[in-house]
Amino acid sequence: MFHSKITVTLRTSILDPQGKAVEHGIHSLGMTNIEHVRIGKFIEFDVNTEAKEEAERVTMEACRKLLANPVMEDFTFTLEKIQKPVHA
Amino acid sequence: MFHSKITVTLRTSILDPQGKAVEHGIHSLGMTNIEHVRIGKFIEFDVNTEAKEEAERVTMEACRKLLANPVMEDFTFTLEKIQKPVHA
Repeated sequence: MFHSKITVTLRTSILDPQGKAVEHGIHSLGMTNIEHVRIGKFIEFDVNTEAKEEAERVTMEACRKLLANPVMEDFTFTLEKIQKPVHA
Repeated sequence: MFHSKITVTLRTSILDPQGKAVEHGIHSLGMTNIEHVRIGKFIEFDVNTEAKEEAERVTMEACRKLLANPVMEDFTFTLEKIQKPVHA
């Protein structure tokens, strides 16, 4: 069994109004040295297989078909071999 | 200057209906070996300081005060020293 952790981020060229709003909030709270806030998505799941290639393939397929919008977003992921489900 | 990457996740004991919906979608697309989908948030920003301790302190403060709900969520972050802004 493998545990996949996926990060989906907006491409740099795409404006991020949500990030701007959060940045404004952060500045209002006094943390004025924080800049260029960007908001993305984080998704994690277990893949029930013993083959790392299969876990990689299935994670990539989920990202391409459902989790990320290829026009506006990029994704990266990490895979970790686990003995039992992380969030069962 | 430092670049912070933050992951905010729902605690394991908290139900994640969004994750359940995504899991259902993933299964409908034929990836039936994916299980226990959980959705979180990903936030990244630059901290304009040369001191790693200050970057760490300010990132922690932003998480505690604004980005994560301490009752329902956990957060982790990484810091990376950078020469120029990642998303300027």
